[in-house]
Amino acid sequence: MMKVIVNVFLKAGVLDSQGKAVHHALESLHFDNVSDVRVGKQIVLKLDESDEVKAMADVTKMCEELLANTVIEDYNIELVK
Amino acid sequence: MMKVIVNVFLKAGVLDSQGKAVHHALESLHFDNVSDVRVGKQIVLKLDESDEVKAMADVTKMCEELLANTVIEDYNIELVK
Repeated sequence: MMKVIVNVFLKAGVLDSQGKAVHHALESLHFDNVSDVRVGKQIVLKLDESDEVKAMADVTKMCEELLANTVIEDYNIELVK
Repeated sequence: MMKVIVNVFLKAGVLDSQGKAVHHALESLHFDNVSDVRVGKQIVLKLDESDEVKAMADVTKMCEELLANTVIEDYNIELVK
């Protein structure tokens, strides 16, 4: 059993409307020291897999095929155990 | 300037329908070694703040007031620099 955390977030140049909305809402609540907000997804997977190399390859394939839209999103993968 | 990462995820007992949908989709793509999927949000904030204690207090307040629905969601906060 292995826990894998995938973070998916919009590429730097892409407008993050959800982030802008959160930023605006924080300002409305008088949090004035926020200069930027980006909102992404965090996907936590549990894999029946003991081979870390195989797990990394599988999860990379999952990201490319389903979890991330690689045209506008980047992702990073973190093996927890 | 300080970068803060907030992860917001559903509490353990709460049905994660988005996670279930992703799990199902991964199975359809023949990823058979996945035993669980949870989907959460990752919010990356940039703060004009140099005091770590103040930053942590502010972001905790942001989570309680806006970023997380504490009835069904947990959150963790990570100061990056």
